[in-house]
Amino acid sequence: MPAPLITLTTDFGETSYYVGALRGVLYRMCPDARLVDVTHQIASFSPLEASFVLSQACPEFPSGTIHLAVVDPGVGGLRRPLIIKTERYAFVGPDNGIFTPFLDGTERVYRIRTEGEESPTFHGRDVFAPAAARLARGEPPEAIGEPTSGAVRLHLPRPRREGQTLIGQVLMLDRFGNLITNVHRRDIEFLGPSLHVHMGTVRVRGLAGSYHEGVVGEPLALIGSSGHLELAVVQGNASAQLGVGREARVRVSPLADA
Amino acid sequence: MPAPLITLTTDFGETSYYVGALRGVLYRMCPDARLVDVTHQIASFSPLEASFVLSQACPEFPSGTIHLAVVDPGVGGLRRPLIIKTERYAFVGPDNGIFTPFLDGTERVYRIRTEGEESPTFHGRDVFAPAAARLARGEPPEAIGEPTSGAVRLHLPRPRREGQTLIGQVLMLDRFGNLITNVHRRDIEFLGPSLHVHMGTVRVRGLAGSYHEGVVGEPLALIGSSGHLELAVVQGNASAQLGVGREARVRVSPLADA
Amino acid sequence: MPAPLITLTTDFGETSYYVGALRGVLYRMCPDARLVDVTHQIASFSPLEASFVLSQACPEFPSGTIHLAVVDPGVGGLRRPLIIKTERYAFVGPDNGIFTPFLDGTERVYRIRTEGEESPTFHGRDVFAPAAARLARGEPPEAIGEPTSGAVRLHLPRPRREGQTLIGQVLMLDRFGNLITNVHRRDIEFLGPSLHVHMGTVRVRGLAGSYHEGVVGEPLALIGSSGHLELAVVQGNASAQLGVGREARVRVSPLADA
Repeated sequence: MPAPLITLTTDFGETSYYVGALRGVLYRMCPDARLVDVTHQIASFSPLEASFVLSQACPEFPSGTIHLAVVDPGVGGLRRPLIIKTERYAFVGPDNGIFTPFLDGTERVYRIRTEGEESPTFHGRDVFAPAAARLARGEPPEAIGEPTSGAVRLHLPRPRREGQTLIGQVLMLDRFGNLITNVHRRDIEFLGPSLHVHMGTVRVRGLAGSYHEGVVGEPLALIGSSGHLELAVVQGNASAQLGVGREARVRVSPLADA
Repeated sequence: MPAPLITLTTDFGETSYYVGALRGVLYRMCPDARLVDVTHQIASFSPLEASFVLSQACPEFPSGTIHLAVVDPGVGGLRRPLIIKTERYAFVGPDNGIFTPFLDGTERVYRIRTEGEESPTFHGRDVFAPAAARLARGEPPEAIGEPTSGAVRLHLPRPRREGQTLIGQVLMLDRFGNLITNVHRRDIEFLGPSLHVHMGTVRVRGLAGSYHEGVVGEPLALIGSSGHLELAVVQGNASAQLGVGREARVRVSPLADA
Repeated sequence: MPAPLITLTTDFGETSYYVGALRGVLYRMCPDARLVDVTHQIASFSPLEASFVLSQACPEFPSGTIHLAVVDPGVGGLRRPLIIKTERYAFVGPDNGIFTPFLDGTERVYRIRTEGEESPTFHGRDVFAPAAARLARGEPPEAIGEPTSGAVRLHLPRPRREGQTLIGQVLMLDRFGNLITNVHRRDIEFLGPSLHVHMGTVRVRGLAGSYHEGVVGEPLALIGSSGHLELAVVQGNASAQLGVGREARVRVSPLADA
């Protein structure tokens, strides 16, 4: 049986000692754990982005994986430290909605017991990593926390329809400057293939099939690998070129209306 | 026998879910794999930089390592998805020349079979990671792809000689701002030790033995750990200070001509 | 028995082939090693920051861990390549003080034998990684180096007291822009809870218990997870907002004097 797998997702960045300390605690408490990073570059203080990234990355992992996620602007406050057990996974992190995509009402939720000696600013090291390590060692969640319920759900921003136009927003940027929106493929099916996408001062006609279908340096729109509408620039940086970022508005409308 | 080793090299950066999803697929399909990053910070869309980085990092790994590399501006287009088997390694990635340093005519090449249901924008997750995981599980390349031949070779920019002067260019920057050129130690042997190196508005006399041989804040030239000529600034950032970057021209000439 | 654990701490950044080559050497020479990054984002050429990060991250790891750290502005010069054995750990890296927090006079120190064929610019790959791999394979330090003594100690900047005011400085920034100072909780105990913290043009009254205790966008001061005084901005970036960085001065004084 391969050693237990623990994924790490944080907004700590790669500087400083934070991620190193997390890893140290995990290996100290569960020496045969295998650690794997999802990312430590979640936008600072953004449970929304964490939730989106987790929704895309975690389902790829094998059943039994423990997903530790610490994007925790409320650390030291009243938000509960949780273990959430779903059919396939255990999630460990703050109760601020980052695990929303995995909540379907069948999950079991536990509030991690703390002893009051934790640093009020670094529950990743002092609360969440120890809980994840104990799960990886095979301890049942009941040994680590009290059963509870009602994990916080994030209110994910949904695109809204105005007549024949759908209005959404940019969820996140990737390294290439691609602008990933909250408009899912399903949301624009009603428009058919003849559509315009507007963002900032740019208007793009139709959807490309992939990033290189167009002129180098020109913007295009496509359905990305998460199933969401994206704006990209062929071999360029859409965010920089369009001068837009997170939460920018996107409008999708039928060709005739554009 | 230690578990199979898979290296990862991409231009995905550390943000977003891309690298996390790759790792998830690899662990799901080959639970005892061991993943190790070369880097995810290849300059966006630069098979040339990928090829240089792979040429320096991959040979350090033990025989039998599987090198997965996804720097793939043509994803979703006609470029072939390949497995390349050399005597020591298996390489998995797009057929755009990134593996040029390892092609010597003795390699066996396979075109990975696809099923048409892959995301047209993320073959890393849907085509290359599954192929690498299957190799790591011990499947022969014949089970994953069709034998083919003629892997694309990158035309690496070579320095050219004009009289007693050698003219090259910057291949890449490192984190310190050091400017690594395509001029190899061998290329300037004919000049002997008495030479000048010009880049931008800077002229440096002779080659230093290491980065600290000089005045803090002053530029120097040396042969770096890859065997290539570099410009550096002692405890400073040469790229920022000289205002030059990738593809900038470098000239090496004998002292008398300078 | 789990495979030997080797941590990596460098200022190489994530670009280029440097970290990839280190990892390759370690796996080639010790195939069952388990590698874990502390960080590769130490401020360039800063043994002081390396020393602080190591002091916070390394003690979390289990006994027997090998800590490889390469922040080495003097590479190729006269500084000695060292193995330092303490009761719990082995440290491998340059003799420039980065391991100061672990030196208590009981350590055994070895100068790594070199053969003169190493690259003068990349001892991480050619000297330190091979030594760490050999330790991980179980070789005694005596087989790798000569016993020596007197590892260099960094003179850590200490806050100084002027009357009732304590004057310190910023040691490092984290990804959030929090300003971590060299003022430890112990250093300001004499002031009691009624104090002012000054940095740049900002004056903060009292210490918060955690990062969210305040108004979004406003600065606060607190004792961070390392036990040191920090300036932060609630859900913001203190370094950007205050316009200060490493080595900036901080003053802590009693309320009445402020």
